[in-house]
Amino acid sequence: MALVVQKYGGSSVADAERIKRVAERIVATKREGNDVVVVVSAMGDTTDELIDLAQQIVPVPSGREYDMLLTAGERISMALLAMAINSLGDKAESFTGSQAGVLTTSVHGRARIVNITPGRVENSVAAGNVAIVAGFQGFSKETMDITTLGRGGSDTTAVALAAALQADVCEIYTDVDGVYSADPRIVPNAKRLSTVTYEEMLELAACGAKILHLRSVEYGRRYGVPIHVRSSFSNKPGTTVAGHMEELAVEDAIISGVAHDRSEVKVTVVGVPDKPGEAAAIFTELAAAEINLDMIVQNISTGGTGRTDVSFTLPGADGPAALAALRKVQASVGFGDLLYDDHIGKLSLVGAGMRSHPGVSAKFFAALAAAGINVEMISTSEIRISVVCRDTDLDEAVRAVHDAFELGSDEEPAVVYGGTGR
Amino acid sequence: MALVVQKYGGSSVADAERIKRVAERIVATKREGNDVVVVVSAMGDTTDELIDLAQQIVPVPSGREYDMLLTAGERISMALLAMAINSLGDKAESFTGSQAGVLTTSVHGRARIVNITPGRVENSVAAGNVAIVAGFQGFSKETMDITTLGRGGSDTTAVALAAALQADVCEIYTDVDGVYSADPRIVPNAKRLSTVTYEEMLELAACGAKILHLRSVEYGRRYGVPIHVRSSFSNKPGTTVAGHMEELAVEDAIISGVAHDRSEVKVTVVGVPDKPGEAAAIFTELAAAEINLDMIVQNISTGGTGRTDVSFTLPGADGPAALAALRKVQASVGFGDLLYDDHIGKLSLVGAGMRSHPGVSAKFFAALAAAGINVEMISTSEIRISVVCRDTDLDEAVRAVHDAFELGSDEEPAVVYGGTGR
Repeated sequence: MALVVQKYGGSSVADAERIKRVAERIVATKREGNDVVVVVSAMGDTTDELIDLAQQIVPVPSGREYDMLLTAGERISMALLAMAINSLGDKAESFTGSQAGVLTTSVHGRARIVNITPGRVENSVAAGNVAIVAGFQGFSKETMDITTLGRGGSDTTAVALAAALQADVCEIYTDVDGVYSADPRIVPNAKRLSTVTYEEMLELAACGAKILHLRSVEYGRRYGVPIHVRSSFSNKPGTTVAGHMEELAVEDAIISGVAHDRSEVKVTVVGVPDKPGEAAAIFTELAAAEINLDMIVQNISTGGTGRTDVSFTLPGADGPAALAALRKVQASVGFGDLLYDDHIGKLSLVGAGMRSHPGVSAKFFAALAAAGINVEMISTSEIRISVVCRDTDLDEAVRAVHDAFELGSDEEPAVVYGGTGR
Repeated sequence: MALVVQKYGGSSVADAERIKRVAERIVATKREGNDVVVVVSAMGDTTDELIDLAQQIVPVPSGREYDMLLTAGERISMALLAMAINSLGDKAESFTGSQAGVLTTSVHGRARIVNITPGRVENSVAAGNVAIVAGFQGFSKETMDITTLGRGGSDTTAVALAAALQADVCEIYTDVDGVYSADPRIVPNAKRLSTVTYEEMLELAACGAKILHLRSVEYGRRYGVPIHVRSSFSNKPGTTVAGHMEELAVEDAIISGVAHDRSEVKVTVVGVPDKPGEAAAIFTELAAAEINLDMIVQNISTGGTGRTDVSFTLPGADGPAALAALRKVQASVGFGDLLYDDHIGKLSLVGAGMRSHPGVSAKFFAALAAAGINVEMISTSEIRISVVCRDTDLDEAVRAVHDAFELGSDEEPAVVYGGTGR
């Protein structure tokens, strides 16, 4: 008998009919002889409706009350899901984040899980119940206030809870059939990956694959929780995230897949004095504004001007804040101008086998060149190569690289069910 | 500086605009130098929407999960109200029933308050905040589960919290200007009562006046909390419920008002053997089904049949359950038939001065007779006379009695703002 943690996203529980279908899946898992703990997000549009209500009251609500408001969403979905399971003749009990012992930092809107003390969940499961736990929420022992975990919070709740319960597997149900070698909407013959290491999944998630949130993969890696990504709309086998790249045999697949991301923007600081400390001043200011940069490129100082350009990419949502922060130090740093480019696309090739196969980079850039893609920025890690190009070139670039590494398969066409499953 | 507990019902916080208006009233009370604790119901239709969702899942949801679901309603309204107060430049913190220390029995759907330990509320107020507390909800220390208080729950939360905090007054904001000598929709010149004793208010509430729920008045009486009923849509003075009938001077008003109730039904058990124990068997069965009876009349056994008829009134919602319970004992008790009448109306005259003025009954029945009202059942208490008549005669009966006791006033026409304020 296994202990299974299942997580269902908002699109999986968007209405009463879907909630009933999810309940049937849970009950089936239970009747196969497993103990089941379920983490659930708010129903489809509930969170947006609550945000809209708050906006009608005040443009920038206080964090404590905003968290109090938003956590009503999972309260509704988890109670309905428990009712649906009860109506099938099984027993279920729902628990809020605080009832489930999800202890977090006290930063509202983006709290981090500090610890999970799931005594009530364990007791409920021991008594034969399916325990339903609200995703995305916890509470701070310091302030005794309700908190939310921010983006990807429900995935993180599920994996962290699976770790705390020493569950055999954490199943993440979403609206795609698993992790693919590329986005099937762009590459029709993209291949489902049956397994992928934590490190590869981290790189894929960080580079735009929206299936699993980075934080949940980090949690799974740290505590060794196998994460099984599956569709809540089918019974297909999905993708298992487990194992480490060091454990891979040399004959394992070199490359896992191609990720892409259209959500970043590029900022170029023009005419930065080319002397020690100037770039540091820029990045210190951005860090103080809590802006996470992704790729950074500094041009070589040319033409004897003694000045250089610094470009970096960052999430589009942080773009205006980055510009404001930089304007503040324009005079003291003495740079010339700021350029803002929101028409970039990022492509990343990820594969744990890459580090031991030196030919990967050459093949990668040859494929992009053959497709006529102009590469604007480059960054690499041990198991990833990323480039920035024009957003209009991105789809073509993804297909070119995917083809060059022969990642496709026509055996099992992918189905995308719509929504993001968050 | 006073400590004021204010309660706002669902119609007072039905949308963002109304929530902002309530916030202004709260801030005004605070800026007058008072400490303010607010109890709030779920927004207008929220509870109905949640009930509808549950119905789509299962006809009879489990109590624990139903309470978990419904308590999301106040969570939303209280967070929005706190945001609205914050946006006006004052500080507010919202608290769930369990955070506010509302300890209840563990009976889901109709828990009773056992104790309130409002430490967090007191600390919040001491720190200069307006504390907003979710009405209608609490938690059971025995099961550690969330509970709801059932009908009138938010009024009860407010009065009980006021008692626990030793507040100077509990203000109940609703959609009428106060307690009137009769329903102004039936009696246009009905007079607002500026004060009414707990005992009179209990009788009025029990007899159909929907302004305050019986349980909250009982709580106020037990702990001596003055309850001030006011409109959240006006600044009119309202009605204060305080004091006991024993304290009234003899020259105080004899009669407070006329209440009416259309929500009851009459059941007649025909042909009950007229011997000891038969009526007891009937009422034991009804009590076992948790049905509360109101008025009971047993006819005199006539004509040497050895049989009699027993009639009683009860809330219409319990009618079908009562019939089912009685059918079960029809054979053992040996009664003939059951008659069901849902076209009755109940009129009650309430006044603390009644007990020392013997002419009240005579004038009451004379007024009804002069108006041609046929009285079907009668019951009395020390400070109340109630009769049952045809529902079609009820409005006329209310006006006749109101006129006979000269309860009206044309000085201050009543305004009814719609809704029930629950």
